[in-house]
Amino acid sequence: MFCFAETVRFADTDMMGVAHHANYFRWFESARVAFLQAAGVDLWDLMKAGYSFPIRDARCAYKVSARYGDCLDIQATMLELTRAKMIFSYQVRRRGDAKLLAEGYTCNVFTNADGKVARLRDEFYQPLLSFCEKEKPAAGSEP
Amino acid sequence: MFCFAETVRFADTDMMGVAHHANYFRWFESARVAFLQAAGVDLWDLMKAGYSFPIRDARCAYKVSARYGDCLDIQATMLELTRAKMIFSYQVRRRGDAKLLAEGYTCNVFTNADGKVARLRDEFYQPLLSFCEKEKPAAGSEP
Amino acid sequence: MFCFAETVRFADTDMMGVAHHANYFRWFESARVAFLQAAGVDLWDLMKAGYSFPIRDARCAYKVSARYGDCLDIQATMLELTRAKMIFSYQVRRRGDAKLLAEGYTCNVFTNADGKVARLRDEFYQPLLSFCEKEKPAAGSEP
Amino acid sequence: MFCFAETVRFADTDMMGVAHHANYFRWFESARVAFLQAAGVDLWDLMKAGYSFPIRDARCAYKVSARYGDCLDIQATMLELTRAKMIFSYQVRRRGDAKLLAEGYTCNVFTNADGKVARLRDEFYQPLLSFCEKEKPAAGSEP
Repeated sequence: MFCFAETVRFADTDMMGVAHHANYFRWFESARVAFLQAAGVDLWDLMKAGYSFPIRDARCAYKVSARYGDCLDIQATMLELTRAKMIFSYQVRRRGDAKLLAEGYTCNVFTNADGKVARLRDEFYQPLLSFCEKEKPAAGSEP
Repeated sequence: MFCFAETVRFADTDMMGVAHHANYFRWFESARVAFLQAAGVDLWDLMKAGYSFPIRDARCAYKVSARYGDCLDIQATMLELTRAKMIFSYQVRRRGDAKLLAEGYTCNVFTNADGKVARLRDEFYQPLLSFCEKEKPAAGSEP
Repeated sequence: MFCFAETVRFADTDMMGVAHHANYFRWFESARVAFLQAAGVDLWDLMKAGYSFPIRDARCAYKVSARYGDCLDIQATMLELTRAKMIFSYQVRRRGDAKLLAEGYTCNVFTNADGKVARLRDEFYQPLLSFCEKEKPAAGSEP
Repeated sequence: MFCFAETVRFADTDMMGVAHHANYFRWFESARVAFLQAAGVDLWDLMKAGYSFPIRDARCAYKVSARYGDCLDIQATMLELTRAKMIFSYQVRRRGDAKLLAEGYTCNVFTNADGKVARLRDEFYQPLLSFCEKEKPAAGSEP
């Protein structure tokens, strides 16, 4: 189970007094790239190798609003990995009471500089696959 | 058909050279509040009347990346309106070639200051309902 | 006198109920690139020619807070232009009552991809210089 | 010497491949509110007590661009504190080589909800004053 910590900043709030909903997609991204980093895949290396990794789909279901100062634990789970795309789900919990604030989903594809689909080379694909296996919740365990 | 125009700003881009994907949710919001405004519902009035309107669900499917300088036409369609929530869909097209760049979906609920669900009063609900009827694509017309 | 129009978006606000102060620097940028565009200098062309144009200095003095829905007129004045840098000042006024909300200042330098100072070529420098002359307030005129 | 750590996120970058310059003002703010927090002054308490704390002046001098993934140490120094305003300076250094990337300055004033200047009560002013004294570099010490 991979987790990334964030804190809601003052600049993240809006005039309804809560974190603006677009920020969650930035937090998902931070959790996702931290996951990749932990798997040994650095975005700089990916970009130097000519890959782009645009988002094709992004969703968030909001349960409870995050507020200024909240410490957030963002759990990122890799749902699917192929050489052409990676799909993540996310759970955002408030530290302290572990309240579930939001759940998310993203799909990235791998492309070359021209925007054509590119297949991930082994040097990036294999470490991701291994890390993904390791992080997978054991069968029968609580989700 | 309600349309809102945006331009991709330099600050909206990221190091992949395209508009960062979180911006689309800000653009959807701008189109949505412009829709409400056009219907005669001002957010200041809503807030003065004690309503909050948090997002419960937000999605975006990205087809083609928006780039710095692109003029965008964001079509907002109200899919559903009740006194407790409003659901919109969005289509983002690049002006010039009318290329479809992205499609989105949001659900807002109406709550009071304590976060409890609140039912929209007639002064807000009726004008929205009328405007929504007027903007609805005619049956049998192209979507 | 070159002017650029902006509207304060909901996403620009913070929990104090006003536009977050960092947004003004995005607005200055939008006014600045619109100035360049009006002078015939497109950022895409600049970048294709190998130039970067990092900010070296940025300041804002805030008088009155901008609020959600405010229409802003951002006047951009080029204070100094050399082949190595450009300096702008800004005045942000609220449309309607022309209230001065903020005043700003930025200095950009021109560099190549390695971050070394680069001197602007004539194809970019000359049109900027001409436009800058044209936009300059006449001596003795009201500021 | 009060220090706050930040990491440059992917969403913070722009198409020049560096952190967009407006982000530094968000980072200054994060360092500033962490300073207040460390002094025992919570923004929620300030707001509940009816205070706003708008920015009146903000500046940043940029030396070297921050890049995606950089870990930043943001040193915040309270230059001046009265019951009506607080002035901070900032130094942003890249962790690892301690390279100075940027220096900043902000001035906040304290106001009530109507935007009128308000004088900070002892419960907020005294702890800030004490903390400020404690954090002050010793006379004759290296800056």
